[in-house]
Amino acid sequence: MAPHLADWRGRYVGSALAVVKPADTRQVAAVVRACAAANVPMVPQGGNTGLCGGATPLPDGRSVVINLSRMNRIRSVDAANNALIAEAGCTLAAVQQAADAENRLFPLSLASEGSCLVGGNLSTNAGGVQVLRYGNMRDLVLGVEVVLPDGRIWDGLRALRKDNTGYDLKQLFIGAEGTLGIVTAAVLKLFPRPRARATAWLAVPHPAVAVELLGFLRARCGERVTAFEIVGRAALELVLRHIPGARSPLAGDHGWCVLLELTDTLDAQALDAMLESAIAAALDTGLVTDTAIAASVAQAAALWALRENISEAQKIEGVSIKHDISVPVSRIPEFLERAHAELTAMWPGVRIVAFGHIGDGNLHYNLSKPDALDNAAFVSRTAEVNRVVHDLVASLQGSISAEHGLGQLKRDENARYKSDLELELMRAVKSAFDPRGLMNPGKVL
Amino acid sequence: MAPHLADWRGRYVGSALAVVKPADTRQVAAVVRACAAANVPMVPQGGNTGLCGGATPLPDGRSVVINLSRMNRIRSVDAANNALIAEAGCTLAAVQQAADAENRLFPLSLASEGSCLVGGNLSTNAGGVQVLRYGNMRDLVLGVEVVLPDGRIWDGLRALRKDNTGYDLKQLFIGAEGTLGIVTAAVLKLFPRPRARATAWLAVPHPAVAVELLGFLRARCGERVTAFEIVGRAALELVLRHIPGARSPLAGDHGWCVLLELTDTLDAQALDAMLESAIAAALDTGLVTDTAIAASVAQAAALWALRENISEAQKIEGVSIKHDISVPVSRIPEFLERAHAELTAMWPGVRIVAFGHIGDGNLHYNLSKPDALDNAAFVSRTAEVNRVVHDLVASLQGSISAEHGLGQLKRDENARYKSDLELELMRAVKSAFDPRGLMNPGKVL
Repeated sequence: MAPHLADWRGRYVGSALAVVKPADTRQVAAVVRACAAANVPMVPQGGNTGLCGGATPLPDGRSVVINLSRMNRIRSVDAANNALIAEAGCTLAAVQQAADAENRLFPLSLASEGSCLVGGNLSTNAGGVQVLRYGNMRDLVLGVEVVLPDGRIWDGLRALRKDNTGYDLKQLFIGAEGTLGIVTAAVLKLFPRPRARATAWLAVPHPAVAVELLGFLRARCGERVTAFEIVGRAALELVLRHIPGARSPLAGDHGWCVLLELTDTLDAQALDAMLESAIAAALDTGLVTDTAIAASVAQAAALWALRENISEAQKIEGVSIKHDISVPVSRIPEFLERAHAELTAMWPGVRIVAFGHIGDGNLHYNLSKPDALDNAAFVSRTAEVNRVVHDLVASLQGSISAEHGLGQLKRDENARYKSDLELELMRAVKSAFDPRGLMNPGKVL
Repeated sequence: MAPHLADWRGRYVGSALAVVKPADTRQVAAVVRACAAANVPMVPQGGNTGLCGGATPLPDGRSVVINLSRMNRIRSVDAANNALIAEAGCTLAAVQQAADAENRLFPLSLASEGSCLVGGNLSTNAGGVQVLRYGNMRDLVLGVEVVLPDGRIWDGLRALRKDNTGYDLKQLFIGAEGTLGIVTAAVLKLFPRPRARATAWLAVPHPAVAVELLGFLRARCGERVTAFEIVGRAALELVLRHIPGARSPLAGDHGWCVLLELTDTLDAQALDAMLESAIAAALDTGLVTDTAIAASVAQAAALWALRENISEAQKIEGVSIKHDISVPVSRIPEFLERAHAELTAMWPGVRIVAFGHIGDGNLHYNLSKPDALDNAAFVSRTAEVNRVVHDLVASLQGSISAEHGLGQLKRDENARYKSDLELELMRAVKSAFDPRGLMNPGKVL
């Protein structure tokens, strides 16, 4: 059972009565009925790639882990309706491939896509690098099939773009981290597959200019702006230091860079021309100070590798204190400025590794230790650092968990920042669906 | 009080203890507290343009109508975050204008936009003609402010693109038709404003070909396909007969036509070229049999008027039996074929006026009486017709209310088609939020 009792990052190690791997929805329902009858808590689990311990059982050993990985069928693809039905145990990559085979795009894209499962994507309302254009997982779901906490199966697998016949119950299960029921399948939206992709690495003088540049590019290029990721100097330096073969795309020293990607159904030449003319205009007006445009698929992949290897490089560098925050896009510059000022005043020499989905107002705002400090001393300041970062986020009407969810990691932190009224409404929903509290206890609430 | 006691179509006439028009959220909360204390039911009301009697009080005269029209401020616009905060009493047109003033688009667009209010758009999850590209109202909302049934104010006015800190409560209020609380303000998403628009009227040999054409166009033009509306022959004939100045865009007799609109941030010339080349290819392959491309804004408006005047023309023609259905886009041809066969077999001579948002799988499927029949005799067959149409929709996993909601009109019909389990879950939500059933009784559930 061991691989199913600990989380991927090794932060949480739990215990369980059993790990079960049902093969279909009826088996899930049978397991849930049995657990409910015996008053045994249940922990739904997908690819176990979550970052907040949402899929790890508690250490009390009272619960049963229900792992969905055997439910890995694509039940159907309806290209004319731009939709497919995937079971919860399909990997995200398998869904992408099923769409691709029908000349369609399933746009959710994140680092763990080869191993994370659709049920987990849905239960955590996963984000990633194309949210700017296509939205979060919530925006990509038309319908769901759910085994309720008493073992009954709710068939909400509707494949409709418009349906106003009462409360949209599926929304409750999306992002609920398995605390209201077990999602066993979903109807997912497909999109036209882009034919052209144009990628560039841009130096910007300041995060405020990055925000301005985003508005400039969207006005010119519209929804072609598919990814707009910011990378701070310290983040890039870690990648260049630790990742073999990584090279800086630009000469000189730049405080902030942006990884930009446009996609379109146009031919590649037309999109390249649009990218080049947009960047030329941005250089003219000082929104961009230097640029490297990918001239091949390999060069584009190299630029993406710089962005995608930041977490890995930070891991090699040593321990870190991480945040997954969001604020309104317009407040990003203020957040970065104030957080930097407060943290460096409190803790001289600390290194701030900031990067992420600035187009969504979502930053991964991490701290690496000053070289001299030992790991334990560094980590012991986590709560103090969280208070600074999260208080600031709250004062900017932001979120302390933009795309990773709450799980065990941020449950108590969330209770500090949510209003009592909102927590009360959340508990009312929980009680309405799971009055005995058997679904994934200790998570979210 | 009279204008607030009947619905716009004159189908429902209710009675109320009072109509109140609060000027701000605190006044709404005060009214709700007073009603709750006195155990008086409340009926939230916006522009009173709904089609299902959702905003009309019941005839029992026990309730208070809370009309939000005085709450008509745009509280703020944050162009860099592509969001604005509108109070529930803003007209949809006022929101569109506020976005436009900042060089942004608020894409929700429907016939009543000059008089319908944001609170109603949100409470009915309104649809309209640009859902294909931008989604329903639900997809356009980032946050809400709600006065709960006990008068407490929930401030959920977050302006975040990513926020995974618990159940997404706002989703419950969207589309709830005022049965869970009163939405007083919302954070709405803005988009880059298209600079170019290209419009065409296309004859297609069959609805199945229209569906194929949609896939063809989306593969070529991507998200530029902003509207894709089907108009059946009988619908066009009514407009040509009753609307002064209406002219058929095409010579000859065509069973089905499509109104297509592309928009883009490109310049107009480039978009026109894309439309022309796409249509040329569609003519070559027989997906389109004849076409009229708008050469001016006035010509585009004339094409749109043909589509938008169908309801008006049908009203002039006489009484009709209407449906607002959706099925998966791929099932539209089957729906049209089977519904036509069943209805004409049951009722020889009945005229079927079918049109609507085929790109969303949503048809307005209406029947006009055979000339000889009197109104009462015609209308008396409504239930019988509904059974045929809605049974067929249910067999195709469709929805009996795609974009208009349930209100009073479809409450019982919905109970016939929803599963007992789903109705039970809906009632559990209702009980959790409004245990005394004071919010808009008799609607939805």
